[in-house]
Amino acid sequence: MQPVDRFQALFNPHSIAVVGASRHQDKLGHIITANIQGSGYRGKLFPVNPKAAEILGLRAYPSPADLPEAPDLGIIILPRDQVLGAMEELAQVKVGAVLVISAGFRETGRQGFELETRMAELAARKKFILLGPNSLGLVNTAMDLNASIALEPPAKGNIGFFSQSGALCAAILDWSLGEGFGFSKFVSLGNKAALSEADVLEAMGDDPDTKVIIGYLESVENGREFMRVAQRVTEKKPVIMIKAGTTQAGARATSSHTGSVAGSIEAGKAAFAQAGIIQVNDVESLFDLARAFSCQPLPKGANLTVVTNSGGPGILAADACEAAGLHLATPSAATVETLREALPPYASLYNPIDIIGDAGADRYRATLEAVARDQLTDAIMILLTPTASAQITETAEAVIEVSKTTDKPVFACFMGDERIGPGRNMLIEAGIPCYAYPEPAVQALTAMVAHHRWRHRPWSVEVCFRRDKGKADKIIGEAQRIHLSELSQPQAFDVAMAYELPVPESTLARTSDQAARAAKKIGYPVALKIVSPHIEGRRALDGVALNLETPAEVRAAFRDITSRVMRKRPGAYISGCLVQAMGPKKAREVVIRLRQDAHFGPLMGFSMAGPSAEILDDIAWRLAPLTLQDAQEMVREIKSFPLLRGVRGEPPVDFGAIEDILLTVSQMAVDFPEIREAELNPILLSEDGALVTDLRLTVS
Amino acid sequence: MQPVDRFQALFNPHSIAVVGASRHQDKLGHIITANIQGSGYRGKLFPVNPKAAEILGLRAYPSPADLPEAPDLGIIILPRDQVLGAMEELAQVKVGAVLVISAGFRETGRQGFELETRMAELAARKKFILLGPNSLGLVNTAMDLNASIALEPPAKGNIGFFSQSGALCAAILDWSLGEGFGFSKFVSLGNKAALSEADVLEAMGDDPDTKVIIGYLESVENGREFMRVAQRVTEKKPVIMIKAGTTQAGARATSSHTGSVAGSIEAGKAAFAQAGIIQVNDVESLFDLARAFSCQPLPKGANLTVVTNSGGPGILAADACEAAGLHLATPSAATVETLREALPPYASLYNPIDIIGDAGADRYRATLEAVARDQLTDAIMILLTPTASAQITETAEAVIEVSKTTDKPVFACFMGDERIGPGRNMLIEAGIPCYAYPEPAVQALTAMVAHHRWRHRPWSVEVCFRRDKGKADKIIGEAQRIHLSELSQPQAFDVAMAYELPVPESTLARTSDQAARAAKKIGYPVALKIVSPHIEGRRALDGVALNLETPAEVRAAFRDITSRVMRKRPGAYISGCLVQAMGPKKAREVVIRLRQDAHFGPLMGFSMAGPSAEILDDIAWRLAPLTLQDAQEMVREIKSFPLLRGVRGEPPVDFGAIEDILLTVSQMAVDFPEIREAELNPILLSEDGALVTDLRLTVS
Repeated sequence: MQPVDRFQALFNPHSIAVVGASRHQDKLGHIITANIQGSGYRGKLFPVNPKAAEILGLRAYPSPADLPEAPDLGIIILPRDQVLGAMEELAQVKVGAVLVISAGFRETGRQGFELETRMAELAARKKFILLGPNSLGLVNTAMDLNASIALEPPAKGNIGFFSQSGALCAAILDWSLGEGFGFSKFVSLGNKAALSEADVLEAMGDDPDTKVIIGYLESVENGREFMRVAQRVTEKKPVIMIKAGTTQAGARATSSHTGSVAGSIEAGKAAFAQAGIIQVNDVESLFDLARAFSCQPLPKGANLTVVTNSGGPGILAADACEAAGLHLATPSAATVETLREALPPYASLYNPIDIIGDAGADRYRATLEAVARDQLTDAIMILLTPTASAQITETAEAVIEVSKTTDKPVFACFMGDERIGPGRNMLIEAGIPCYAYPEPAVQALTAMVAHHRWRHRPWSVEVCFRRDKGKADKIIGEAQRIHLSELSQPQAFDVAMAYELPVPESTLARTSDQAARAAKKIGYPVALKIVSPHIEGRRALDGVALNLETPAEVRAAFRDITSRVMRKRPGAYISGCLVQAMGPKKAREVVIRLRQDAHFGPLMGFSMAGPSAEILDDIAWRLAPLTLQDAQEMVREIKSFPLLRGVRGEPPVDFGAIEDILLTVSQMAVDFPEIREAELNPILLSEDGALVTDLRLTVS
Repeated sequence: MQPVDRFQALFNPHSIAVVGASRHQDKLGHIITANIQGSGYRGKLFPVNPKAAEILGLRAYPSPADLPEAPDLGIIILPRDQVLGAMEELAQVKVGAVLVISAGFRETGRQGFELETRMAELAARKKFILLGPNSLGLVNTAMDLNASIALEPPAKGNIGFFSQSGALCAAILDWSLGEGFGFSKFVSLGNKAALSEADVLEAMGDDPDTKVIIGYLESVENGREFMRVAQRVTEKKPVIMIKAGTTQAGARATSSHTGSVAGSIEAGKAAFAQAGIIQVNDVESLFDLARAFSCQPLPKGANLTVVTNSGGPGILAADACEAAGLHLATPSAATVETLREALPPYASLYNPIDIIGDAGADRYRATLEAVARDQLTDAIMILLTPTASAQITETAEAVIEVSKTTDKPVFACFMGDERIGPGRNMLIEAGIPCYAYPEPAVQALTAMVAHHRWRHRPWSVEVCFRRDKGKADKIIGEAQRIHLSELSQPQAFDVAMAYELPVPESTLARTSDQAARAAKKIGYPVALKIVSPHIEGRRALDGVALNLETPAEVRAAFRDITSRVMRKRPGAYISGCLVQAMGPKKAREVVIRLRQDAHFGPLMGFSMAGPSAEILDDIAWRLAPLTLQDAQEMVREIKSFPLLRGVRGEPPVDFGAIEDILLTVSQMAVDFPEIREAELNPILLSEDGALVTDLRLTVS
């Protein structure tokens, strides 16, 4: 397999040279050699050190040139200024991959950055993989390889982890030992001079030992490449990530930490979502989700049944479900009938099914068996509080047995600590996630439902719109030639018409008489809008008049607008006014935005018109090009969506019409990367169509 | 002290009788007797059992009548149908308080409910305290009293806990043992037949052993009484609560569990907030917050400094801070100077202060000492990840020592598990909260900042408005007499005028000529609105015309409106049209709502006008009567507040004017509890005033 082969030398090396291996126990060059040796690695290990003949019982070599064979992996752990030299020596003996543990590069300023660039260039020229510098190392538990300066290797398991923060690796390793978490691969990305998060994601995606991938990132090197890889990987396995720096304060801290500029927060979120990555905000969630994905099947739907021996926690679970958008399943008639016979009269047979505080393990078992058979339930959560009658280990046993008979995911939530401990351990051992509270169980299930939907989403439909690209090209090219960054209104409308966007009939009038004649031709009522290359923000200057009904009104408005603007902006050249047909009266107004993100390319936003959308952060963002599904989701995921569906007896808007406009603007963004910004504001949406009544286009 | 005395017999009994004590080890009547005896209780303990002479080495008595003295506390643990009889016997010997462990009452249906009511009546008549039934019991660690059927008593500490869910008590008890949490009082409320959450809150508020109160509630018995008590208690100590059933799904589960109807979700939240209660959504937060409050001083402001040995977790902390509304403090020039000398050149001196992964304990100490002296910092968070160089216990020692020299709260976040364990234990022992992730530390600090603000909020100002209550009384009384639930427009406006609310000049016109005359008197432009006792939702019926500029337009609109409404509602009696002055043109439109909540009384809402407010859940709720501060907060806490402050160069609205209207409506709600609903929609707000252009009043 080509993709696996590509990273073979790094992850599955047959031989390793440690350049900078040391005999002194407290040196990292000793620690990493000891870790490789101590983890049970079965390949060849060559310490390289000019001053030692033997290290840890292994023969040491003075330099890479003296090695008996070309190592698959060379690990460098030397003072900064010796690293490049060592890399060159390794390159000469045709090393497959180099891992640089040494720090002091990009993160320390200009000089380190330049050194790092030369290292990356060398790796590219000599075609070897470069992980780091400033990496904590890597672990491949399938090979019993702990090539890291972490003190203890993680347990074997099916979770792949990569992190841009070395310290977080250390914390997570320590944490995983206490929690009984098992990893397949563990990679500290370091400064990402060459090997990027996209490469590691690809490697883990193809790794048969990895079932779930989790990661921590502060920046993404090549946004589009990362998305492309992630989209392919998330078709096969869940990818759960924390992106640090998702607030202004966090972004400031990121850039002072890594020296890298983060893309916009919106673009990053959109990229993750469009690539099917599950984004979480904290490390705890990363693990709660990883645990669930690593050992339970995906639920086929969002219908959860909660079985509890106490009402209170059941209510908390119900609250968490509703807040997360999960449904409490309605038990089938057969289930209710079975439960009525199996449970005491005071039990609540409806979900949450409350089997009452005096329930022993048998009552749990009978209930779980009924629920597991119920077609209306997609997932099961068992709550247990340590009441006096609770049979904790016996209940854990019942949960384990029933879970073996069903393909629904099963989650346990044993509340407490000391008394429930043995039961919890049994469950975790048997591969049933057991949480201390209902909320994380609900969060994990929500993510699994979302991932199942992602894997089963309809094939993305490529939509191609008829357009006169040549005409648009001519207009945009002209604007660029005369260094006009914002297109004039007539130009922008011409581009819109080249893309067959629905725009109102409109004519540029240079006099009030021309305006009246144009209005007659277009049909009343009309709008007038000032046209001037020197003016932005027409509305603020009162450069717009709406709903003009008669020739007299049109003439008066023309004079009003032009004289007012001339007064307010004495130097501006005024081309005249655009006379436009008015849109439907009872339309809802929406906005489509387009802008270029430094890391991820063209980013599109959809929202209701007006300042509220920004204030309330109610804008749906996606990276272009959009699929039909993206367009449909954008329109529906804003919180204001009910306004489009219609409130107080209004009919729904024409969704097809607005989705078409989104897809057309996406096409425009792909056709013309030189469009720096576009704003279609407002677009009038009614039950039978859409009309772009105003748009701005800025080119670079 | 009267308040403590009131609950003395329950919490600090000198003698206890256990009615239903048993010799059989697996019976609850045995377990509770053994628990009291085993916990070290130093008062007198009398088992009551007609069939035993001796239980657990104690002389047993056949019945309460045979007891050698009147017990302070009687505990009943008998089959349901014997409970009332035992209570009567205890009442006869003048018991001070009764705790009923037995279950099978309100939670099981009608018969149990009636029995429970009789128990409550007996307690009221005989003037003893009744806790339960269906209670797990209570614990008072100060007296070494474990009068509960929980298996182990909690550790001694300063946290008071009460819960409506017995099972949750058991879970939390078990959890606290593993986490080293200490409690002062621990109360299982049971069915709250007599003793309510308000009583327990009052008792814990007055209890010198309790520093922090935490609680779990599913329903509140007497909303106003609870608020009154809570307001008094939160002046002295923090009260942190989970209210289960805060979603529709949760509320359904609650009512099936407790048989009690919850008040509206909005009213409950408003009540908690107005009483200064810190409301959390999950059990984990309850403990994270309790830990912080129980051992750290309150911060004097919201400025946090983060000290970290790794960039990644620092960024996550910064993200969490911004999301929670905390500020990252700017270090003072002196601090920066000190740090520049103390830290290596690659350290980041700005907050988060990154002392780099190779930091030992000394670097932490020097940094913390500088930050502790910094006047611009209100609170300190120390992040540690277990890097190879980390000195974990030595760093914990440094944190503990520096924390002794400062009155700023100090939080630690040692990330990991096994390696950082010893450091974490040292910190917790020394009273420094130590979390596994930055997010819960930020959440706890946020709550402490809020509580500090609550304790130092300005005195609530009683505002009294001039009003003609007699006039309003006459109008409302008249509507009630003729069984009119919704007041007519002119009536509603008359009430508004009696309260001197700013309403537009308006006149009822019965003909188009009258309308034109009225318009001339009022001054153009005017609005026309249909008036009919049979019509609700004027706008839906097109019963409104705005911005009429000439007599001809007024006459035409009058005919239009009346004929249209007559056509659409053939049977309706039409009084005519209200002719109204138009408000300012560029006003922002807001809404004030008033409605009666079954549990908490008059509830008021403030929002922007239009369907978005409800769709986006952007409504500020408070219970009337409002203080001036409440009114100010309502206007400012909606997410749309920037619209009122002014966007795109708009001036801010007249905040005083809208606050006055809120306070006036609050006054109206207090004066007239018979007002079932009121809606002032829209209120036009401009930079120089407010105008209530439409209002609906419904009376009962």
